[in-house]
Amino acid sequence: MSTVESELRVGMVGYAFMGAAHSQAWRTVNRVFDLPTRARMALICGRDESKVATAANRLGWDGHTTDWRDLINRDDIDVVDVCTPGDSHAEITIAALAAGKHVLCEKPLANSVEEARAMVAAAAKAQAVGVRSMCGFNYRRVPAVTLMRQLVESGRLGVIRQVRAVYLQDWIVDPQFPLVWRLQRDRAGSGALGDIGAHIIDLTQYVTGQRITGVSAITETFIKERPLPAESSGLAASTGNGSVEAVATGEVTVDDAAVFVARLDGGAIATYEASRFATGRKNALRVEINGSLGSVVFDLERLNELEFYEATGPTAGQGFNRILVTEGDHPYMSAWWPPGHIIGYEHSFTHEMRDFLEAIATGTDPTPSFADALQVQLVLDAVVRSAELGSSWTEVEPTLVTVAA
Amino acid sequence: MSTVESELRVGMVGYAFMGAAHSQAWRTVNRVFDLPTRARMALICGRDESKVATAANRLGWDGHTTDWRDLINRDDIDVVDVCTPGDSHAEITIAALAAGKHVLCEKPLANSVEEARAMVAAAAKAQAVGVRSMCGFNYRRVPAVTLMRQLVESGRLGVIRQVRAVYLQDWIVDPQFPLVWRLQRDRAGSGALGDIGAHIIDLTQYVTGQRITGVSAITETFIKERPLPAESSGLAASTGNGSVEAVATGEVTVDDAAVFVARLDGGAIATYEASRFATGRKNALRVEINGSLGSVVFDLERLNELEFYEATGPTAGQGFNRILVTEGDHPYMSAWWPPGHIIGYEHSFTHEMRDFLEAIATGTDPTPSFADALQVQLVLDAVVRSAELGSSWTEVEPTLVTVAA
Amino acid sequence: MSTVESELRVGMVGYAFMGAAHSQAWRTVNRVFDLPTRARMALICGRDESKVATAANRLGWDGHTTDWRDLINRDDIDVVDVCTPGDSHAEITIAALAAGKHVLCEKPLANSVEEARAMVAAAAKAQAVGVRSMCGFNYRRVPAVTLMRQLVESGRLGVIRQVRAVYLQDWIVDPQFPLVWRLQRDRAGSGALGDIGAHIIDLTQYVTGQRITGVSAITETFIKERPLPAESSGLAASTGNGSVEAVATGEVTVDDAAVFVARLDGGAIATYEASRFATGRKNALRVEINGSLGSVVFDLERLNELEFYEATGPTAGQGFNRILVTEGDHPYMSAWWPPGHIIGYEHSFTHEMRDFLEAIATGTDPTPSFADALQVQLVLDAVVRSAELGSSWTEVEPTLVTVAA
Amino acid sequence: MSTVESELRVGMVGYAFMGAAHSQAWRTVNRVFDLPTRARMALICGRDESKVATAANRLGWDGHTTDWRDLINRDDIDVVDVCTPGDSHAEITIAALAAGKHVLCEKPLANSVEEARAMVAAAAKAQAVGVRSMCGFNYRRVPAVTLMRQLVESGRLGVIRQVRAVYLQDWIVDPQFPLVWRLQRDRAGSGALGDIGAHIIDLTQYVTGQRITGVSAITETFIKERPLPAESSGLAASTGNGSVEAVATGEVTVDDAAVFVARLDGGAIATYEASRFATGRKNALRVEINGSLGSVVFDLERLNELEFYEATGPTAGQGFNRILVTEGDHPYMSAWWPPGHIIGYEHSFTHEMRDFLEAIATGTDPTPSFADALQVQLVLDAVVRSAELGSSWTEVEPTLVTVAA
Repeated sequence: MSTVESELRVGMVGYAFMGAAHSQAWRTVNRVFDLPTRARMALICGRDESKVATAANRLGWDGHTTDWRDLINRDDIDVVDVCTPGDSHAEITIAALAAGKHVLCEKPLANSVEEARAMVAAAAKAQAVGVRSMCGFNYRRVPAVTLMRQLVESGRLGVIRQVRAVYLQDWIVDPQFPLVWRLQRDRAGSGALGDIGAHIIDLTQYVTGQRITGVSAITETFIKERPLPAESSGLAASTGNGSVEAVATGEVTVDDAAVFVARLDGGAIATYEASRFATGRKNALRVEINGSLGSVVFDLERLNELEFYEATGPTAGQGFNRILVTEGDHPYMSAWWPPGHIIGYEHSFTHEMRDFLEAIATGTDPTPSFADALQVQLVLDAVVRSAELGSSWTEVEPTLVTVAA
Repeated sequence: MSTVESELRVGMVGYAFMGAAHSQAWRTVNRVFDLPTRARMALICGRDESKVATAANRLGWDGHTTDWRDLINRDDIDVVDVCTPGDSHAEITIAALAAGKHVLCEKPLANSVEEARAMVAAAAKAQAVGVRSMCGFNYRRVPAVTLMRQLVESGRLGVIRQVRAVYLQDWIVDPQFPLVWRLQRDRAGSGALGDIGAHIIDLTQYVTGQRITGVSAITETFIKERPLPAESSGLAASTGNGSVEAVATGEVTVDDAAVFVARLDGGAIATYEASRFATGRKNALRVEINGSLGSVVFDLERLNELEFYEATGPTAGQGFNRILVTEGDHPYMSAWWPPGHIIGYEHSFTHEMRDFLEAIATGTDPTPSFADALQVQLVLDAVVRSAELGSSWTEVEPTLVTVAA
Repeated sequence: MSTVESELRVGMVGYAFMGAAHSQAWRTVNRVFDLPTRARMALICGRDESKVATAANRLGWDGHTTDWRDLINRDDIDVVDVCTPGDSHAEITIAALAAGKHVLCEKPLANSVEEARAMVAAAAKAQAVGVRSMCGFNYRRVPAVTLMRQLVESGRLGVIRQVRAVYLQDWIVDPQFPLVWRLQRDRAGSGALGDIGAHIIDLTQYVTGQRITGVSAITETFIKERPLPAESSGLAASTGNGSVEAVATGEVTVDDAAVFVARLDGGAIATYEASRFATGRKNALRVEINGSLGSVVFDLERLNELEFYEATGPTAGQGFNRILVTEGDHPYMSAWWPPGHIIGYEHSFTHEMRDFLEAIATGTDPTPSFADALQVQLVLDAVVRSAELGSSWTEVEPTLVTVAA
Repeated sequence: MSTVESELRVGMVGYAFMGAAHSQAWRTVNRVFDLPTRARMALICGRDESKVATAANRLGWDGHTTDWRDLINRDDIDVVDVCTPGDSHAEITIAALAAGKHVLCEKPLANSVEEARAMVAAAAKAQAVGVRSMCGFNYRRVPAVTLMRQLVESGRLGVIRQVRAVYLQDWIVDPQFPLVWRLQRDRAGSGALGDIGAHIIDLTQYVTGQRITGVSAITETFIKERPLPAESSGLAASTGNGSVEAVATGEVTVDDAAVFVARLDGGAIATYEASRFATGRKNALRVEINGSLGSVVFDLERLNELEFYEATGPTAGQGFNRILVTEGDHPYMSAWWPPGHIIGYEHSFTHEMRDFLEAIATGTDPTPSFADALQVQLVLDAVVRSAELGSSWTEVEPTLVTVAA
C-alpha cells in the first residue's frame, strides 16, 4: 500500500443528480484504490447560497461558493469538476482550463458542436502546459464495459460486423410530467438523444474501436406541450397532483426519442435508439456487438454481468456465457468485494475518478478526451440534421486536427 | 367433439425444410383440434422422382408427382400448399387459384412486387367464387404473438409509440459456407431481408395494427464471394471440409444483413434489423413494443413466454411480467398439454393449418391475406430502394385496391 | 434414407393425457427419424366404448377395444404401451410380457415396491426370450438432459458433489380443486412424490450416474379435504363453478408436497422437492448439478436450453454458458429443425419411441429398464417411510438381483 | 433537510472484509440519508499496529488502537461495531455493553449457543438502561428483501406454504485452497453453515414471519485436508502457486456444505442449503417463498430485482413479475439514484447503519435483536446436532425468555 504523498483539491460546480453521484465517487475513490495522490473535496459551487451550503454539508465538501469564477480562480483548487447542465459547460470549462485547472466535464461535452470545438481547442492549449482534461462518459468504467473493450481489442470477437444499441427510459411517458430543464432545448441541447443517446454512441465507439461515419435518423416528440413545473431540478421533478386549477403549459423543444441506422468506419453497420418513452424501461442501456468470431451483450440494469459468445470450439458446447464480472481479475474489481458481491451504478464514477486522478498524478492524458467527446457531439449533430432533413443520409463531420495555438 | 363430415385433400409443392414443417402440421392438426373438416395428405410434388417418392413415404403423403401442373389440376385435390422457393410462388399460386384450389402460400409471397400484385389480383378473383387464399406468416400463430395482438387490440398498451424488432441468425458467418439458393437473388429475391425481415415486418404490423409508411435503410453483404455448393438445399448445406483443391466461387447477390428505421401510420417509430451475421444468434426473432400504458416483449427462442409490463397501479409493484403462455385460456393452447408443458416452433404451423381449414370450412377469408402479404412486399421493396439510394428516406407504396377483373 | 422393411404394431392402453402424448409420438417418430422399423398405431384400449372409439378416431389409431386382455392377446399386436394410472400397471404389464409383447410402461412403474418387484421379475423372464421392456421416464430424452448426461459421463464436471432438484407445480393450490384420482392413494400410489418426484429422482440418478442411498424426508398435505368431482380425469378436472348447493367432500390421501435431503453412492449430497403447491410454478422441473470441475443447470420450462459452467481456463472468462440445445450435433436434434427452432414437451416422447423402436429392432435392451424404475420406486418408498417416521434417516432398500425363474 | 444536531462516535473492531464494508457504510450513511444524528468514524481497532494504522488511514477513521478494551472503555466512543471473527464476538460485545456502548455485532452472533445466550442476557440488561444492540444480518436491508417482507406482511402471498433457500459459493472448490481461519472450527464455529447458512435462515424467517422448529440435516466436508496458509485473512487467501516443496497440511474442521429440510411454526415446510462447493456460484443467495396467493423469488447476485407472482386476476395474464427495485417508493431507494440505476452489495450495510443510527437516536430497539440472532444460532445448532445424529429429526431449542438480572 503506497504512502499517500500528495493531494489534489477538487472544486465541483453543480450539486444535483450528477453532483451527488460525483461526490459519492470523490468520497470513496481513495478509500478503495491505492493511488499516488489523494482527492480532497475542497469546494462546491451552486447559485443558491442556502442550497449549496446544505449540499456542502450533506455531501461532505469542505466549503462552498455561489460563484463558479471564484472557484476556478482560487489557488487552493487543483481540479474542477463540471456537473452543471450542458449550456454552461463551455464557459466554465474553458475558463477553468485557462486558469490552469485540470477539468473533468460531464457529458455531453456541450450543447453544440461550436462550443465543443472551442472546448477542444482550449483543452489542447492547456494540455501543452500539462493541464489535463477528460469528459465524463462514466459507463466506459463499468467493469463489464471495460471487459468488452478488452475482448474486442484482443481480437476475441474478430472483425466487428454489427452493433445494436438502445438506451431506454420511461420517466416522461406521463403527459402530465412537467416541462423540466431537460425538456428544454436551450438548457439541455437535445432530449433523449444528447442525454442518453450520447452514452451509447460513446460506449459503442469505445468498445468497437470504430467511429460512426454517417446516419439516417428519426427523432420524435410524442408529447408536444407539458405543464410548467412549479420548481424542478432534473429527473426528480413531479407534478403537483390534486391540483384542480388550470396549469400553464409550455412547449417541449427536445426529442422524446431518437432512432437511427449508422455505418462505422471499420465496416460495421448499426442501429441506435434513445428513448424516454419506452414504458417499463427504467435505465435500459443495452448493447450487442457481433463480430466474425464472437459477440458480447451488455445491459446496464444488470451491469455486473456480461454475456460473451465465442464461435470457436465444438458447436455443441457454444452459447452465450454469462460472466459475473466480479472477479479480482476483472477491471477495477480487485478494489471491491469478494466474487459475486455486486457493485452499483455509482461505482462507475469512482472508477472514473480513479483513472482521472492517476492520469493527473502520472502526467498522462486521460480518456475520453474532449476531442473524443467532440466526435460524439458531431454524431449527435448528424443525427439532428438527418432528422431535420426527413431522415436522409447524413455524414458525420470530421473532428479535424485541433491545433493548439 | 364434432363428427367429422368432410375432408379437404391437400396437395403440397416442395418437400425441403418448409415441406417437412408443413407436413408435420397437416399430420397433426386434426389430431389435436376439433374442426369441421379433416385434412387429407393426398399428394406431394417435387422435381426429382426418387426424392419426392422418398419424401412422400417419409412424411406421410398418399401419393407423389413431379409435375406441379398435374397436382393443381387434379380433381381430387382441394387445397394447394406452396412450399417452394419464392421464384415459383407466383406461377404456381396463380394457376392453382385459377383451377379453383384454395391456396396456402409460404412467405414471402413473391420475389417481386409485380408478382405479388398479380397474385393479389388472382386471389381477389378467386375469392369472388369462394376460393380462399392465405400467406404463411406462421409466427402470427405462436400463442404468445397472438396474445400480444389481443393485448394491443384490447387497449392494454394504450397508444403504440415505439417498435423495435430484430431477427438474427448466424448460419452464414463462416466465409466458407457455400453459395446456396438462399444467397442468390434470382432464386430467393433477397437475403436476410426477405427471408427473415419479412417475418418481423408482418409480425409487428399485425400486433400493432399499424403499417409502415416509410423507411431509411442500410443493407450489407459482408462476404461477397462464396464457394459454389456441390449440391445443396436450403439451410442444410455445408462445405466439404478437408478439400485441398481450389473451389469454384460465385457472387453473393443478396444482403447478409438489413437495418432500417421506420415510421408507422399510427404515429409509432421503429427500428428493424434482419441479419444472418449475428454470431451466436440462431433464430432470435425479438420484438419489443412500447405503448403509452404498457409494453410487450417476445423472443422466438423462448416462444412460450411473453413479457408484459403494465404502467398502472402502484409504481412499487410494476415490472415485466413473464407470462408462461401455456394456459388453457391462452390462444390455441387448450388443444395441447397441461400448463407449463411447452410447445415448439412447428406448432405455429399446426395452428396456421387449423385456422386455414376452419376458414375454408366456414366460408370465411383467412388472414394474412395475399393483400396483407403484398403490403409486406412493398415494405421490403422500400427497404431495398432506400438502401440503393444511399439510405435516403423512402415511402412505402400503397397497396392500392385490387379490383378483380 | 433406409428402406423400411418391417413394422411393429402398437397397442396402447389408456387415452387420457399420457395417451394423447404417446399418440403424438407414435404418429411422428417414423416421420422424422430413420429407423429400421416402423410403428403402426394399431389398437387403442379404454373402458368406455364410446370414448375410446372417439379417441381412436381423434388420435389416429386403426382400431379400438374396451378389453386390455384382448389387446395383449391379439396376434397382430407386437408392442404394448401402458398409459393407465399406476394401479393397473403391474397387472397389464405382467400379462403383456407373458403374452410375448414388448412393453413400454409409463412411470412410475407401479404404486408399490411389491408390484414393481413382480414386474422386474416378469421383465427378466421375458428378456430371456427376446421380449423388451422399458419404463417411460421421458425426460431422459429431452436433448438438454441427454447432453447433461454426456457431459458428466465424459468427465467434464469432474467428481459430482451436489445435486439440487425440484419439480414444482401449482395446479391444486386452490382448495376448491376437486378430489381427482391423482389425489387418491389407492389410484395414484402417492401424490406429488410419485407423480413428479419420481421424475427428478430418475433424472438426477441418470445424469450423475449415482444412486440415492438414503433420505430424510418431510411430506405434507396442506389441504386435507376437497370437493368430490362430478367426473374427472387427471389434470383436466375443474370444479363446477356457480354451484350453490353443498358439495360432498372427500379426504386427500396423498402428499401435496415432499421434500428430502439425500446421500448418493458416489459421495454427492442432495436436496429434492416435489410440490403441487408452488404457486406460479407450472411445470418447473429444475436441476442443478455441481461437480469439482463444472456445473450444469436445467429447467424444463426452458427445455431447449442448458446452462453449463466450466471451472477451467482463465477466471475472467468463466460463466454459466447458455447452450441453446438445437444444433444438429446435439442429441436427437438432427431430426428436427434448423438451429434455434425450438422443440416442445411432446418431443421427449418421440425420442423415447425412437429409442424403444430401435432397441426392439436391433435386439438390445432399452433403458430405463424396469429394474431402473424399481430402484426409483425404492427411493420413493424410503421417502414415504422416512416421512412416516418423523423425518428420520432411512436407507433405500437394495434392488437385489432379480432372477428370472 | 434536517439540521444535524448530534453525533455518535463509532469505534470499530476488525478491519478485514467486514471492516472495509462497514467503513464504506459509516462513511456514506449520513451523505445519503437524512438522520437525526451523524456517525463519526472515530476509532478503529486491530491487533497489528502497522496494519491497523494503514487501515485507519485508508478507510477514513480518525484514530486507531490495538486494544479493543481501550476502545470500548473510552468516553469518546458511543457505538461499538464488532467485525471480528465469531470467536471473539461474545467477549467484546458483552464488555462493550457493560461499558454502556451501543453495539452492532456482525453475524453469526457467536460461535456457540452458550455464548449467544450470554450475549442476549447482556443485551437485555443493557437495554434496560437505554443501551441498544443489533446483529448485522445485513441482507434484511437489501431493498428487495425488505419489499418481500412487506408483501408477506400485507397478506399478498396468503398463507406461506413452502420455502426454498440456498446460499451457494465456490471459493474452496480447489483442493489446494489453503486452510484459512474460516475453515477452522475453533475460529469460525462452523463452515458454510454458520457463515452463509445463517444468512438464509435469518432472511427466510424474517420474510415469512415464521420460525424453524425442527430439521433433518446432512453436512459434508468434501476436502478433509488442506495446505496451511503462509498467512491469510478471510476470503482473500490464495495458495503460493509455483511452489515445488512439500506443503504442510492441516485438517478442515468445518463443513463444506450443509443441507436440511425443515418445518416452520406457521405450517410451512422448507429446504435449505449452504455450500462453498457449488462450482460456478459466487454469491448465490437464492430464496423462493410460496404462499397460497402468491410467490416471491430473490437472487442476491441480482439484488436489485424481485420476482413476484400473484395468483389473482385472470389466469391468462399471470406470471412472475420482475420488479426492478429501484423506485423512489421502494424501501431505502429514495436516498439513491433515479429508477433503474442499480445499487450494490455494500448498500445493504449503509441501510443497516441508517436504521441502527435512527434507533439509537429515537430510543427504540433495532432489529434483528440479539435474541433474534440467538434463535438463528439455535437453528444452526439443531442442524449440527441432526447431522451428527445421522440426519435424524432434531427440534430447535426454544430461545427462552431471557431475564435481565
